[in-house]
Amino acid sequence: MTSVLNDPNDFAGQALRGFVLAHQGLVASVPGGVVRRDRPARRTVAVVTGGGSGHYPAFCGWVGPGLADGAAVGDVFASPSTEQICSVARAADNGAGILLSYGNYAGDVLNFTAAQRRLEAEGFAVANLPICDDVTSASALERHKRRGTAGDLVVLKAAGWAAAHGRGLAEVTALAERAEQRTFSFGIAFAGCTLPGDQRPLFSLQPGQMGVGMGVHGEPGVSEGPIVPARELAQTLVDRLLEERPEDGGPAVLALLNGLGATGHEELHVLWGDVYDSLAAAGVAVAACEVDELITSLDMSGVSLTLCWLDDELLAAWQAPCWTAGYSRGPEPDLGEERRFAGAAPAAPAEAAPHASGQSVALAGQAADLAQAVLEALLVHEDELGRLDAVAGDGDHGRGMVRGARAAAAAAATASGAGRGLGDTVAAAGEAWAADSGGTSGALWGAALTAAGRAFGNEQSVGRFTILAAVTAARNAIVELGGAEMGDKTMLDALEPFLAALARHWNADPEDLAGGWRAAAAVAGQAAEATAQLVARRGRARPLGERGLGHPDPGAVSLALILSRLGEADGN
Amino acid sequence: MTSVLNDPNDFAGQALRGFVLAHQGLVASVPGGVVRRDRPARRTVAVVTGGGSGHYPAFCGWVGPGLADGAAVGDVFASPSTEQICSVARAADNGAGILLSYGNYAGDVLNFTAAQRRLEAEGFAVANLPICDDVTSASALERHKRRGTAGDLVVLKAAGWAAAHGRGLAEVTALAERAEQRTFSFGIAFAGCTLPGDQRPLFSLQPGQMGVGMGVHGEPGVSEGPIVPARELAQTLVDRLLEERPEDGGPAVLALLNGLGATGHEELHVLWGDVYDSLAAAGVAVAACEVDELITSLDMSGVSLTLCWLDDELLAAWQAPCWTAGYSRGPEPDLGEERRFAGAAPAAPAEAAPHASGQSVALAGQAADLAQAVLEALLVHEDELGRLDAVAGDGDHGRGMVRGARAAAAAAATASGAGRGLGDTVAAAGEAWAADSGGTSGALWGAALTAAGRAFGNEQSVGRFTILAAVTAARNAIVELGGAEMGDKTMLDALEPFLAALARHWNADPEDLAGGWRAAAAVAGQAAEATAQLVARRGRARPLGERGLGHPDPGAVSLALILSRLGEADGN
Repeated sequence: MTSVLNDPNDFAGQALRGFVLAHQGLVASVPGGVVRRDRPARRTVAVVTGGGSGHYPAFCGWVGPGLADGAAVGDVFASPSTEQICSVARAADNGAGILLSYGNYAGDVLNFTAAQRRLEAEGFAVANLPICDDVTSASALERHKRRGTAGDLVVLKAAGWAAAHGRGLAEVTALAERAEQRTFSFGIAFAGCTLPGDQRPLFSLQPGQMGVGMGVHGEPGVSEGPIVPARELAQTLVDRLLEERPEDGGPAVLALLNGLGATGHEELHVLWGDVYDSLAAAGVAVAACEVDELITSLDMSGVSLTLCWLDDELLAAWQAPCWTAGYSRGPEPDLGEERRFAGAAPAAPAEAAPHASGQSVALAGQAADLAQAVLEALLVHEDELGRLDAVAGDGDHGRGMVRGARAAAAAAATASGAGRGLGDTVAAAGEAWAADSGGTSGALWGAALTAAGRAFGNEQSVGRFTILAAVTAARNAIVELGGAEMGDKTMLDALEPFLAALARHWNADPEDLAGGWRAAAAVAGQAAEATAQLVARRGRARPLGERGLGHPDPGAVSLALILSRLGEADGN
Repeated sequence: MTSVLNDPNDFAGQALRGFVLAHQGLVASVPGGVVRRDRPARRTVAVVTGGGSGHYPAFCGWVGPGLADGAAVGDVFASPSTEQICSVARAADNGAGILLSYGNYAGDVLNFTAAQRRLEAEGFAVANLPICDDVTSASALERHKRRGTAGDLVVLKAAGWAAAHGRGLAEVTALAERAEQRTFSFGIAFAGCTLPGDQRPLFSLQPGQMGVGMGVHGEPGVSEGPIVPARELAQTLVDRLLEERPEDGGPAVLALLNGLGATGHEELHVLWGDVYDSLAAAGVAVAACEVDELITSLDMSGVSLTLCWLDDELLAAWQAPCWTAGYSRGPEPDLGEERRFAGAAPAAPAEAAPHASGQSVALAGQAADLAQAVLEALLVHEDELGRLDAVAGDGDHGRGMVRGARAAAAAAATASGAGRGLGDTVAAAGEAWAADSGGTSGALWGAALTAAGRAFGNEQSVGRFTILAAVTAARNAIVELGGAEMGDKTMLDALEPFLAALARHWNADPEDLAGGWRAAAAVAGQAAEATAQLVARRGRARPLGERGLGHPDPGAVSLALILSRLGEADGN
């Protein structure tokens, strides 16, 4: 239960403000997140991380000398947007390239990858390393599908050490990749967390039960069972992690025992004594350890154990000093001649505003009205979408869609009011959606609307071919960015039949634009319903190795909702 | 809810073991707690703190260079015993005197004060400073009755800084006192904590309600009311604390915003932004701040704000480096030539075993049996005593009594088995009770039994005069140590009428030892019942300024229970 808040919709923003106020000597606020206040005078690789809020000290608590140079900060449990990541990366840049490294979640991968492309287009050298340490979210053969948890800290520490030592981007990335490959985590949940403003937790366990292998947002684990004594719990965690000991895994590990929020420090200490014994009994020595809240989930109750199979260099990297708000080791690093962050982040290059036809300007006004109508429809269904998402994901879909649609409606109104054409107005809505919403849906809707806007343009009249072209462009953008295929149970599973039905109806009756749209939206609704049922039926019992970008999500449902709402408008 | 544990009765011990295993480079385990692993080669004042477990990082998490030299670690929410404190202090001693400083709770004051006396008798120079920062537990005129909360850290940091700079005991104590006098805290609880092994929280609030001014163990606050937005909460905390601004309180404060356990870091950050604004609006600048879990209460949900009105020296002391498991600032202090702690704590001087008469040895066997019977009676009533305690205190009375009685029964059996007399056996039971139980009841029962044992001796036959003398000696020890008077609603309120009734009955019928005891025990039971009703009736609504050593406690009830159980034995 989140008891301390003002406006639930601005919880993450206010938390970030308070964090920066509490650590003014260490971090500076930039649009989209925070960067180090001081940096070395020499050129170094910038290590940039980020993720949703609600996981403190991850991720803004890891910004400082010897660790990360910047963190993009998303809404609660939602990826930062592409633009947030770009903004932080530009401000963190220290002249020797940028490593983007973050936990492996669909929304984060989408947005960090899109940011990589945009930054590369701006001339930066950028490497991209998602962290996949959670052994319960996919098999060892599909490590790239595993979620990122407390292993994030190990990887970022290695990267931060290599960067501080002046290594180049390729070397920094290579060491971080080695740390990533040798790091394994396993988590247990005892009780769910509650999103700010909500009254009910995202998920619940029966009293006395624990969820084995749960993700840090309450994503389903591999099983549920009765809570066992700490000694048995320790043995379970250690046994599972030792299964993945690499062939060249030496006798010594770095161990992180992490509390998810409400689990007390003394509980962690009890468990650590038992983990220590279990490792010793297996002949594994602990070269270094941390027992603390390292990556949390609001007020979730639970623990996770992380093992990193060290080599000499990784041990040196771990033990080296670092100084951040949330995690410090040893004396403050010597930065040489320090350089104070100037405070203003360099902006992306601006583009000139193009001309628009009178008809296109009129259609832009209708589009802005539609954007407002979509927002209102989403507000009505926000809780329902969140509950649907909580079955298999992190429960933020409704909140993220509303946030994005609100930004899109405002941007569309502004663009239309400024006399921009339909294409610009739709594209502005897409950019605002992506920038404000974050998460998977934010990136996908942002890309889709931006592509649709480009297809509309600002000069053309709009008929069935233009609309078909715009929807197709949106579909293509979604496929390109998300990598989903039909049957992956994503929004594509509703969009593809919608597009086919739209073409079919308008071929049969070219004049009935509105009727064709409504019929196609009904088809999309049926497809979305089937996807939702699949999600509900599979619930928490889905087998391993089936997650990743293609995991069943409520995007199909919200897409169908929006298509249906658009069909009710006169403008179609 | 505590989900990670093995044996609830050994929770604190196992947590301490895990803590030491996780921080082997920093702390060393000694009987009763932990001390710094490394110390400066020069002679310095040893700063020794301590308290119950369940408050991490308080208190063992504050041991290290620049902060405390040792911490005595009690059972969950129970004071460490006198012997634990002495043991830690002897091991922490660094040749220049010892400052004992700790939160102001009845049990801690009893045990630290008794430890001071014992250490002084052994030749140490000792100063004693209870910390009283919680403004809601007594009025400003009765500061000595206020509880200690997060202000502990401010006072210990000042003391640790002065000690590290080679100041003498009087100077270290003077600076710590100045910090103590200028530090004020105010706490809010949203939900109670659950003792390890228990299924229900120590106290509950209605959903949506908060307890204003609650203590760190759920002791009653000044009021309950609906949860307000963070902005209002911040204003409430700041307004109340500014009321106590000292006349020479400068424009700048040190502020600590503390989370009690389950309250998320992001919630603290949201609140910190609002506290910062409220202080700024009142013209108060924040010279330094910490926003973190500084003193917790297991999994309690809540926050507290601490303000210390700095002067130049206190600011320097706060900002100076320190390096501990739970709280670090700046680079690791230069210790000069370090000295590694040898590992073995010096023991208290041993005493020679005296001779005992045959009759006394036989009575010792009966006393050991009675100790076992008392333990069993307390086990039956453990939960009931805990619930009674939770109304006005920290809910640990039942657990503490069982822990003490278990140790006493074992010690009595050992002493009796080794052929010791009645006096030695009873005294051994008392020493074991005090050493293992901790808390207020542990200290009082330990002192009472030890005094009774001395009164019995090992040579005398035992009749009504000997028993009356022993009970009187126990009563006197309780009064001397606890400072309670009749009517303070402590165990004395049952013991005094018991003693009077015992004398009356045995005067009337000198032969009926057992009947007289049972009649007196019944009188004690009535008095205890009246006390318990008073506690229940006053509940959480007691006015300010009525706490401290004399606060209503369930000690009268457990005393009457034990007296009654002793009356059922044949041996009387």
